[in-house]
Amino acid sequence: MAVILHSPKPAGLSTLNREQAWSLYLSVRFQSESICQSLATEDYVIQSMDDVSPPKWHLAHTSWFFENFLLMPFLRGYPLFHPRFGYLFNSYYESVGEFYPRRQRGFLSRPTVEEIYDYRTHVNHFIARLIQTADDAQWQELAFLLTLGMHHEHQHQELLLTDIKHIFATNPLRPAYQPPRLPAADRPESALEWLHFPAGVRQIGHHGPGFAFDNESPRHEVHLGAYRLGSRLVTNGEYLEFMEDGGYAKPQHWLSDGWRTVRERAWRAPLYWEHSGGRWWQMTLSGMRRLVESEPVCHISYYEADAYARWAGKRLPTEAEWESAAMDLPVAGNLMDSGILHPTPAPETTIAPTQFFGDVWEWTCSPYVPYPGYRPAQGALGEYNGKFMCNQMVLRGGSCVTPATHIRPSYRNFFPPDTRWQFTGLRLAEDA
Amino acid sequence: MAVILHSPKPAGLSTLNREQAWSLYLSVRFQSESICQSLATEDYVIQSMDDVSPPKWHLAHTSWFFENFLLMPFLRGYPLFHPRFGYLFNSYYESVGEFYPRRQRGFLSRPTVEEIYDYRTHVNHFIARLIQTADDAQWQELAFLLTLGMHHEHQHQELLLTDIKHIFATNPLRPAYQPPRLPAADRPESALEWLHFPAGVRQIGHHGPGFAFDNESPRHEVHLGAYRLGSRLVTNGEYLEFMEDGGYAKPQHWLSDGWRTVRERAWRAPLYWEHSGGRWWQMTLSGMRRLVESEPVCHISYYEADAYARWAGKRLPTEAEWESAAMDLPVAGNLMDSGILHPTPAPETTIAPTQFFGDVWEWTCSPYVPYPGYRPAQGALGEYNGKFMCNQMVLRGGSCVTPATHIRPSYRNFFPPDTRWQFTGLRLAEDA
Amino acid sequence: MAVILHSPKPAGLSTLNREQAWSLYLSVRFQSESICQSLATEDYVIQSMDDVSPPKWHLAHTSWFFENFLLMPFLRGYPLFHPRFGYLFNSYYESVGEFYPRRQRGFLSRPTVEEIYDYRTHVNHFIARLIQTADDAQWQELAFLLTLGMHHEHQHQELLLTDIKHIFATNPLRPAYQPPRLPAADRPESALEWLHFPAGVRQIGHHGPGFAFDNESPRHEVHLGAYRLGSRLVTNGEYLEFMEDGGYAKPQHWLSDGWRTVRERAWRAPLYWEHSGGRWWQMTLSGMRRLVESEPVCHISYYEADAYARWAGKRLPTEAEWESAAMDLPVAGNLMDSGILHPTPAPETTIAPTQFFGDVWEWTCSPYVPYPGYRPAQGALGEYNGKFMCNQMVLRGGSCVTPATHIRPSYRNFFPPDTRWQFTGLRLAEDA
Amino acid sequence: MAVILHSPKPAGLSTLNREQAWSLYLSVRFQSESICQSLATEDYVIQSMDDVSPPKWHLAHTSWFFENFLLMPFLRGYPLFHPRFGYLFNSYYESVGEFYPRRQRGFLSRPTVEEIYDYRTHVNHFIARLIQTADDAQWQELAFLLTLGMHHEHQHQELLLTDIKHIFATNPLRPAYQPPRLPAADRPESALEWLHFPAGVRQIGHHGPGFAFDNESPRHEVHLGAYRLGSRLVTNGEYLEFMEDGGYAKPQHWLSDGWRTVRERAWRAPLYWEHSGGRWWQMTLSGMRRLVESEPVCHISYYEADAYARWAGKRLPTEAEWESAAMDLPVAGNLMDSGILHPTPAPETTIAPTQFFGDVWEWTCSPYVPYPGYRPAQGALGEYNGKFMCNQMVLRGGSCVTPATHIRPSYRNFFPPDTRWQFTGLRLAEDA
Repeated sequence: MAVILHSPKPAGLSTLNREQAWSLYLSVRFQSESICQSLATEDYVIQSMDDVSPPKWHLAHTSWFFENFLLMPFLRGYPLFHPRFGYLFNSYYESVGEFYPRRQRGFLSRPTVEEIYDYRTHVNHFIARLIQTADDAQWQELAFLLTLGMHHEHQHQELLLTDIKHIFATNPLRPAYQPPRLPAADRPESALEWLHFPAGVRQIGHHGPGFAFDNESPRHEVHLGAYRLGSRLVTNGEYLEFMEDGGYAKPQHWLSDGWRTVRERAWRAPLYWEHSGGRWWQMTLSGMRRLVESEPVCHISYYEADAYARWAGKRLPTEAEWESAAMDLPVAGNLMDSGILHPTPAPETTIAPTQFFGDVWEWTCSPYVPYPGYRPAQGALGEYNGKFMCNQMVLRGGSCVTPATHIRPSYRNFFPPDTRWQFTGLRLAEDA
Repeated sequence: MAVILHSPKPAGLSTLNREQAWSLYLSVRFQSESICQSLATEDYVIQSMDDVSPPKWHLAHTSWFFENFLLMPFLRGYPLFHPRFGYLFNSYYESVGEFYPRRQRGFLSRPTVEEIYDYRTHVNHFIARLIQTADDAQWQELAFLLTLGMHHEHQHQELLLTDIKHIFATNPLRPAYQPPRLPAADRPESALEWLHFPAGVRQIGHHGPGFAFDNESPRHEVHLGAYRLGSRLVTNGEYLEFMEDGGYAKPQHWLSDGWRTVRERAWRAPLYWEHSGGRWWQMTLSGMRRLVESEPVCHISYYEADAYARWAGKRLPTEAEWESAAMDLPVAGNLMDSGILHPTPAPETTIAPTQFFGDVWEWTCSPYVPYPGYRPAQGALGEYNGKFMCNQMVLRGGSCVTPATHIRPSYRNFFPPDTRWQFTGLRLAEDA
Repeated sequence: MAVILHSPKPAGLSTLNREQAWSLYLSVRFQSESICQSLATEDYVIQSMDDVSPPKWHLAHTSWFFENFLLMPFLRGYPLFHPRFGYLFNSYYESVGEFYPRRQRGFLSRPTVEEIYDYRTHVNHFIARLIQTADDAQWQELAFLLTLGMHHEHQHQELLLTDIKHIFATNPLRPAYQPPRLPAADRPESALEWLHFPAGVRQIGHHGPGFAFDNESPRHEVHLGAYRLGSRLVTNGEYLEFMEDGGYAKPQHWLSDGWRTVRERAWRAPLYWEHSGGRWWQMTLSGMRRLVESEPVCHISYYEADAYARWAGKRLPTEAEWESAAMDLPVAGNLMDSGILHPTPAPETTIAPTQFFGDVWEWTCSPYVPYPGYRPAQGALGEYNGKFMCNQMVLRGGSCVTPATHIRPSYRNFFPPDTRWQFTGLRLAEDA
Repeated sequence: MAVILHSPKPAGLSTLNREQAWSLYLSVRFQSESICQSLATEDYVIQSMDDVSPPKWHLAHTSWFFENFLLMPFLRGYPLFHPRFGYLFNSYYESVGEFYPRRQRGFLSRPTVEEIYDYRTHVNHFIARLIQTADDAQWQELAFLLTLGMHHEHQHQELLLTDIKHIFATNPLRPAYQPPRLPAADRPESALEWLHFPAGVRQIGHHGPGFAFDNESPRHEVHLGAYRLGSRLVTNGEYLEFMEDGGYAKPQHWLSDGWRTVRERAWRAPLYWEHSGGRWWQMTLSGMRRLVESEPVCHISYYEADAYARWAGKRLPTEAEWESAAMDLPVAGNLMDSGILHPTPAPETTIAPTQFFGDVWEWTCSPYVPYPGYRPAQGALGEYNGKFMCNQMVLRGGSCVTPATHIRPSYRNFFPPDTRWQFTGLRLAEDA
C-alpha cells in the first residue's frame, strides 16, 4: 500500500488547531502501540514472507515518516535518534536515499523492540515541540503533513494486523493474537438479493473538505450502463460450492495468468483454510476455528474472485459502479474498531445494501490507473505518487482490520492480482 | 497475442462466396510460406527465448488451427495428418486437450521442416475439399471460421517476422534476413507538432460489416477531456536525449515495477541497440545498421515508453484518445506489405497526423480490459476469450511487420508491460 | 568430460609416422561424420538441456580444437575459416579467450550444418598440409597434439551419441536414431557370482608407451583390503526389485544430497524409463522398447547407484579396486564399434568377470581427485588440467557408445553425482 | 555438521559413573546457555541465511536430542514438554518423523525464548532422574548416549557462535557480541617455515579409549609420499597479496566450479571483509575491526583456499598428511575456551609446528568419504551415518570457536566447498 497524498484542502484541514492536532496525533500513535500490546518480543521480529514486515519495523517506519517529513525539514536543531535509522526504516522513497532491502527486514534483531519504543517516544517528544513552536505561517503546511502522517500510520495499523495474522498462521503452533470475540456456531446465510442501478452519468472521486489521498482526485464524470450489485458479500458457503464443483481444477473459469498461478502455487482453497478431520478450518487472529459458511469469503486473490464470479455467471463490479452505489451509504460496518478482527455474516434477512464498508476489501475489475487529469504532487513526498499505477487492481470498502476513520466511499486501495494475505473478498455484479 | 474472435456479422462475411474464400485462403497461406522463403532449414528450429516460437512451429500451428476448428468438426472422414500434431501444435486451448509446453518448442527437431510443409499441403488439400463440398446451410459458419483462421494466420505472420528478428539478433554472427531496403544515411527529424482534440463524448469500438475480433466490441460511448497528441512518433534521436540525461539511472522517471525491471535486467537502451566504436548500432531484419536518429524508437517496453513520456513532461495516450484520433484517418503506412520491415522516419515537414498506422505499435496507458458489455463467444473457440484481460497494456496502430489487411482503427493489441521484442514505440499525449 | 592431456611418451607416440598419422586422423574425422549421417538437418541444431550440445556444435568444436591447438600455432599463414568461430566453438578454455555461453548453444541456427561441414573440410585440408610440411624437429610435438586431438574427438563421438539420445528422447514423437539391432525378447538373467580379491599393495595408474590422459598418472601404490566384486553388472530386473521395494520412497537408502535430488526432481525410475499400459518401456537409440530385465541398468545417477548398493547390503567399488580387477582383462566388450549402442545382457552362465569394458560406465565410490604427485601440464592445453577435480565421481570401463580404441583399464571418466544422461550403471562390491 | 556416532568403547566410556555423568552433563548444558547470555531476546530469533539457525533453535534442538534419544526410549512415564516440539526441533532424522523445513526456522516467534529455557530445565530435570534411576544393566548404553549428546551439544556451541557472527554481520548496525579481547595493533608476520615429513606407511583414524565419532574409524594404514607442510597458517597479509595480484579475476587459479561460484556470487574477498576509506575491515564477534595482516585468513571457501594454494605454487594437504603431522602434537591452541573468538597470529619466530589446533579449521584436499571398512552403526541414531559423505571436503584442527574438549587429531569436520561462514582457513603443503 503506497502513500499517495492529497493536496491540502484549506477549508478542511487548516481548521485543525494545534491542540486538536496533538491530541489526534497522540491517539493515533497510541493506537499502533496498543495493537502490539499482546505481542511477545519475538513476534515483533518475524518476516514470514517478502510482503510481510516485522511489527517492530512498522512501529519504526511510521516514526521515521514523521522524523523525515516533519522534524528534519521543520524543526531547527532536531537531534536524529540514530544516524542509520533513515537507511533502515525508509520503505521505498528512492529520492530520500538508499534504503535497506525489503526482503531482509526479518534479519534485523537490532534495534531491539525496546529501542524502537524509545525511538517512538523521542519522535513524539519532538513532534510536541514542533506543534508548539511552529510559526503560524507554517502551521497550515504542518497540519497537512501531520494529517498525512496519521493517515499513513492508519495504513500501517491495518498492515500490522494483517502481517501479525500471517506470522501466526505460518507458525505450526498456530498461536492466537486475541481471545475469540465471536460465537463458533454458524447461522444460516442471508439470501442474496440484487441492487439495481440505472444507466447514466455519475461523478466519482473525492470532493468536500475532508482528507483524501491524491489518487482519489480529480472528481470526474463517468458513464455507467445499468447494472446490479449483490446486496451482500459472497460467503464461505457459496465459495465452497465453487470449490466442490472443481473450481480450482477447471481452466475455463480462470484468467490465463490466474490459471498459471493456481498451478504453480498449488492453490486449492483460500489462504488460511485447512482441511482436517473431514472439515474445513480457518486460521483467524483468534487462532484456528471451524469454517463458518455464512461469513464472507476472505483472503482470496483477484484471480480467485474473478474465477468465482465467472463460475457464478456474473462478474466483478468496476470501481465506478462500486463507488456510485456506496457514495450515499453510511460509512459504518465491521471495521477494526469493532475489535472482532474477522469478517462477520450479513444480517439474515435484508434487501438493503450491506457490508459495503468493513468485513473484507472488495476486489473490483478495475486496474489501478490515474483518474483523468490526475497530477502528481510536487516535492519529496509526491515524487513517486503514480509509481504504483501498473499491474495492480483496485479494491474498495475497507475490511475488519481497517481503522474506521481511514475509510470513505472514494478510497482506492490497490494490490497485485495474486495477493491473498490482505483481508480480501468480493461482491458480485452483472449488467442490468 | 491471443486469438479473440468476433461473432460473425452476416451482412459482411456471409457474402464471401466459395471461390473468393478459396482464393483468399490460398493467398494467406502462401504469404506465410513466402515469409520463410529465405530461411535456412536450421533457422526454422530455434526458440531464442520463451516468448519466441520456432518458425516451423508457427507454420504448423496455423495449419493445426484450420485442422482443429474446421476440418475435424466439419469434414466427414477427414484423415488426420499425424495423431500427435494436435498435442504438439495446440498453443493454449486447454479445452481442446493437453498441449506441449511452450518453453520447450525449441527442443523439437522432428517433425522436420519438410514434414511441416507436407502438413500444410495436406491441410490445404482438405480445406479445398471442405469449401467445395460443404452444405449451403453450413457455409456461413464456415466462412466465418475460415475468415477467423486467416486473421489468425495474419497474426502469426507478424510473429514470424518478430521472432525471426529475435533469433537472428541472438546469434553472434548477426545474420541478415533480407538485404537492406533503406538508405543508411540519416536525415533531419521533422518537428514535433501537436494535434488538438476537443473534449466530448465519442464512440469507440468496432462497427460496420468488416471482420473484427470480439475484444473490439461492443461499440460504446466514452467521455474524453480535451487532449493533444504528437503529430508523429517519438524518434531515436529524442530517445537518445532521454538516455543521455540519465534516463535509465533515475528512479523518478519510472513506475515502481519498471524501475525494478530496469535494475534486474540491466536495461540501458532499447532492445537490439548496441554501442560499439563510440556509436550506437541497431540490429534490423537487414542486419546491423547505424542508428538513424530520425526513425521512430522501437523495441521498448511499456515501462520505457512511460518513463520517456514522464521525463518529457507528457504522458501516453489512452486507447480511447488514440482511436478517436485515428478513426477517420486512412489505414495506410509503413506496414509489412512495404517490404521494408523496419520503422521509417516521418515526413520532414508536416503538421498533419502521421505514422498512426504502421512503423511501430504505440503503447497506450490503457490496461487491457473488456469493453463494457463485452460477452465472450460460445463454444470451443470462445471458451477463453477474456483470459488474457489482466496484466497487459493495449497497443494501437500496427507496425512495419503487420500485414496491411490486418489492421484497423479499432484493433486492440496487448502485451505485458515488460515486452520488448515486438516492434513497439510511442506517441506522446497531454491534456489540453 | 574435460580434456586432460598426458605428456607425450616418446617410446610410443614418436613412432607414429606422418602417413600413419594422416590415415588415423582421417579415420577419426570420418567416424564423427559417419555418426551424424542419419540425422536430419534439424537434429543437428537442438540443445535439449544445458548438458547437451547440438550435434553440429560437436562437429565444429572438434575442428576448432585442431585449428586452435595445431594450425594456428604451427602452420604459418594458416587462413582462419571464420573470425568468430573461435568465440563460438571454444568450449571452456578461458585462457584462449572469451567464449559463447554453453547454455545458449541451441540458439544458433548459423553457421548452418553445411557451413560446418565446410569448416571440417577446410581444417582437414590444412592438417594434411601441416603433416606434410612440418619440420622434423616439430614432428614429435605435432604427433602428440594430433593424437590428443583424435582422442578428444573420440570423446565427442561418445558425447554425440549420448546427446542425440537425449534429443530424441525429449521429443514426444520419440524418433529412432537407427533400426533395432537386438531381439526384443528377454532372456533369463545370469546368476550373480562374486569375484574375490585378496588384500595387498597394488599399482594403479597408466604405464607403458600408449596414450593416456594426464589424470591417469602418475602410477602409484595403493593398499587394498580384501574385497569382492560382482561378476557382472546390476540388471534392470534387479533394479526393479529395488523400485518395487519402495527404493525411491525410503530416505534411509540415500545420501542426504541424493534424497534431496530425488524429491526435487521427482525421480521414480532411471532416466528414459516410462511406465505405460502396465509395463515399463525404455527409450533407446532405436526408439521405444520394452524393458529387458536381463540388460544392465543404465542412465542412473551416482545417487541411485549408491542407494541401490546400500539397499542390497553392498557398496560400490573404489576406482582402485576396479582398476586392480580389470587391469589384466582383455579390453573388449559391447563398445561403440559393435553398433548396438545399447547395453546387452551378460552371458547366461559364467563365473568369470564379465562386462568390465563396454555396456555401461560403472560408478565407483571414488571422488575425482588428482593422483598423488599429479602435475598439470605446461602451456595453453594444460592450463586448466585439474580444474574439474571437485564435486565429481569417477566412472570406469566405458560404455556401449565408447569408441573401442578410447578405453583402457586406467581410464578415469568423471561426472557430477546427479548425472543421468550418460550411459551409466553399476557393479556391486563388498569387503571380503 | 552431522552427528556421526562412534560405537561405545567399554574400556573408556563405561568407566563414566553416574555422578561424573551428571556433572559433565550440567557443565555442557550450562556452557550453551552461557554462550547466549549476552544476547537480546530478538537475537535468538534470526535466521540470516539458510545455513544459519536461530540461537533459540540450537538451544531447543540440543534438548530435543536428549529427549528423543534418551528420555523417550529409556525413562518410563516421561512427560513430553510439548507435543509439537519433536516436529519443530528435529533437524534431519527422517526416520524419527516429519520435521519442520530448515529454511523456515527464522519464521518462528513461538515458542518464545523463555519457553525454550523452560524446555531446557524440563529436560535437565528428567535427565537427572534418568541418571539416578536407570538400571545398572542399561547404564553403559546410557553413558554412551549421554556422552554422544554432550558432544552433539558441543558441536552446536560452535554453531551458535558461528551463526551469531553471521546474524550480527548481516545487520547494518554491525553490533558486537562481546567487547574486544585483543589489541587492535598489528605485529609482523612470522616467517613461513616448512615442516618436512618422510614417505612411508602411517596409521590414521581414531584409536584408544576416548570418545570419537564413527567417521574417524576404523583406524587403517595409508601410504604417504614425502611431503612438507607450512609451519603456520596462511595469513591475511599473504592472502591480500593474492587479491592484489588479481586472484579473484584470473580463472587460471580456480577450479571450474570455484570460478563459476566466484562470478555468480561476485566474490572479491573473504566473507566479512569490507573495504572502506581505503582500508580493509573485518567483522568480528567484537564488531568491526581493522584487518590485521598477521592473523590467519579466515572465512574462506574451499575454492578460495585451493585457488590461493595454486597461485602460491603449492597445494592443500590431504587429511592423512595433516593427521600424520598432528597426531603427536599437544591438543592446544586458540580454541573457544580462550574466549577470544577470533584467530590470532602465530608466534613471531618459530620453526616448530604451530596453529594445528584452534584458530581456523584447515581445508584439506580430501573429499569426505568413508574410511575403508567403515560400518554405519545400527538403530535410529546410526540410520543415516554415512548420508553426508558426498560433495563435501574434510577440514581439520578446530577453530577459535571450537570447545577445547571437542577436538582431537583424528576429528573430521566436513563442509561443502562453497562454505564460508564457518571459521575456515588454510595451511600450505607441497610434495617433498
